Amino acid sequence: MLWAVIMAGGAGTRFWPESRRKLPKQFLRFFGSKTLLEETVARLRDVVPASRTIVITSRDKVALSRKLLKKVPAAHILGEPVGRNTAPCAALAAAIALRKDPEAVIALLPADHHIGKPGVFRRALRTAFRVALKSRMPVTFGIKPAFAHTGYGYLEMGPLTERPSGAAVYRLKRFHEKPDGRKAAAFLRSGKFLWNSGMFVWRADEVLKATARYQPEIDDLVKKILGVVLQQGLNRWFAKMPSISIDYGLMEKMKGRILTMPVDFGWNDVGGWQSLADLCRCDREGNVVTGKALLVESAGNIVRSGDRLVALLGMKDHVVVDTPDALLVCPRGKTESIRRVVETLRQKKLDRYL
Amino acid sequence: MLWAVIMAGGAGTRFWPESRRKLPKQFLRFFGSKTLLEETVARLRDVVPASRTIVITSRDKVALSRKLLKKVPAAHILGEPVGRNTAPCAALAAAIALRKDPEAVIALLPADHHIGKPGVFRRALRTAFRVALKSRMPVTFGIKPAFAHTGYGYLEMGPLTERPSGAAVYRLKRFHEKPDGRKAAAFLRSGKFLWNSGMFVWRADEVLKATARYQPEIDDLVKKILGVVLQQGLNRWFAKMPSISIDYGLMEKMKGRILTMPVDFGWNDVGGWQSLADLCRCDREGNVVTGKALLVESAGNIVRSGDRLVALLGMKDHVVVDTPDALLVCPRGKTESIRRVVETLRQKKLDRYL
Repeated sequence: MLWAVIMAGGAGTRFWPESRRKLPKQFLRFFGSKTLLEETVARLRDVVPASRTIVITSRDKVALSRKLLKKVPAAHILGEPVGRNTAPCAALAAAIALRKDPEAVIALLPADHHIGKPGVFRRALRTAFRVALKSRMPVTFGIKPAFAHTGYGYLEMGPLTERPSGAAVYRLKRFHEKPDGRKAAAFLRSGKFLWNSGMFVWRADEVLKATARYQPEIDDLVKKILGVVLQQGLNRWFAKMPSISIDYGLMEKMKGRILTMPVDFGWNDVGGWQSLADLCRCDREGNVVTGKALLVESAGNIVRSGDRLVALLGMKDHVVVDTPDALLVCPRGKTESIRRVVETLRQKKLDRYL
Repeated sequence: MLWAVIMAGGAGTRFWPESRRKLPKQFLRFFGSKTLLEETVARLRDVVPASRTIVITSRDKVALSRKLLKKVPAAHILGEPVGRNTAPCAALAAAIALRKDPEAVIALLPADHHIGKPGVFRRALRTAFRVALKSRMPVTFGIKPAFAHTGYGYLEMGPLTERPSGAAVYRLKRFHEKPDGRKAAAFLRSGKFLWNSGMFVWRADEVLKATARYQPEIDDLVKKILGVVLQQGLNRWFAKMPSISIDYGLMEKMKGRILTMPVDFGWNDVGGWQSLADLCRCDREGNVVTGKALLVESAGNIVRSGDRLVALLGMKDHVVVDTPDALLVCPRGKTESIRRVVETLRQKKLDRYL
């Protein structure tokens, strides 16, 4: 059966001041009444029931996650005492699923992405499940690139392997890290490269086999954690895990035995205010506005406000984010540096704004 | 004796969102714990006692003004039911002063200007008092222009008349309205032009003589108002006053019989955020900051915040004004258009932000 493993441990700073340590991005409501985490679970309907959904978050977010995801069994919502990247999380989740389902296939999914075409996404999941089950190989989801993005990793496609239900599946030739502009342009031109969405579908038994082989330390610790009550095991042993990603810790070592499936389901990693604005409707002047705002002679701005009135006069291409205790103003082109603000707050010990 | 008539009826919008209908500029605390109105009264000390100070404000600001100016007799703080420019206000105040002091000389002073050298200002007042008393002419204060300002009216100096206590006093040749840039540059070069500060010193009996001659309607109404309890008289008759300034209504008609005194007492009309910033200390990057703020890679900004943290990232030469219910962001070069924001609020019936 297909299981979903939702990684909800992120502590991103790129949405400060809306995102905080206590309320990182996956717990924000950008598109209505649901948090990104809730949307991630909701869009699995018909494909993965809540009973086969596992959520790994940080320990202090377990209570909040359980409150939001009432249908997911409480025992499936686990908290990492410290972040250890994706490989330990995937191995642990695979072991949990395997204990209940020897034929388990897991779909590893970040909790904080947006998918514009959930129907297409569900079809892709079903296809990937069949391919992963039969081939025993991980099936990575590669996004057909819309432009020469330098902020994503890339998947280089090898030869076509099969066409189940009309979907093309390729051997993965190589992972590529975030390229510079020239390289990204070459990737785009060649037609052989996809954005690495960070999502994949993989048999649980194969995840554990690869872990045992390439990351024996993780494998040992997973066994220890599974020997006791799960959350207690996490509390005791998880911090000993090496911090390593699935891509580096497992897949990079499995060259030639990985598949990739080009998909086009309206994926957006909601990586910052800029990405978010791409997903929102703008007014005639290109302003994307949420909340109470008054824009005079202003164009191309992203404005997020709550109850207070935000008035912009003569502003072009800026981001204004207003929260009850903190406000950010910056040019749109500067949103990548928001972490610098967060770092400065930390240095100045202004922790209550973090 | 010298009397002070403080005009505190302004309802300016250029400091929105800090200034509001309920709290216009003269009631704001820009330079510490005192409002501009309080500072205007305080800087008269030794020259005009509170007992010879008359404050004319708008009717709904009388209670607040009395609360702020405890030493000024309550009967000397009067409220106009509607604004009627400066001529009616000056005539009324002159009549009030004259009733108590047949030798009264009034100094007409806006409540919302800043004077950096109050000692020099007081000396100028004393000199102007003597000149006005003896000459029976109005003595206007002209500010030596620092640059070719296009936002002020100008006073053109005629021949030198006298040098009491070393101060030069000139015949006023002509009033000039706000010039364009070329004209302002020519004014500056000639050395014959001064900024019209809007302040002058004039015998009360002469103010009333000029009023009776050039504005008989105002003169009649002043007599009516003085015939009853003052505030009741204002309530009943003030709205009937023509709306006209002293410059147009009286002085323009008195050509040749007006004096002007070049002064240099650190005058600033606090005409907007830009003027205010000129008066405040800035950091090494040229930012003028009041309240809680965090500036990263930002220079030349004016930031006003209260309890909330205002974070600027990569911002150059902008104004950010934060108040509990409304926020304004605009480029420094746009502050002259803040009234457009206020007009838009009015059109949209967002009166609670006005």
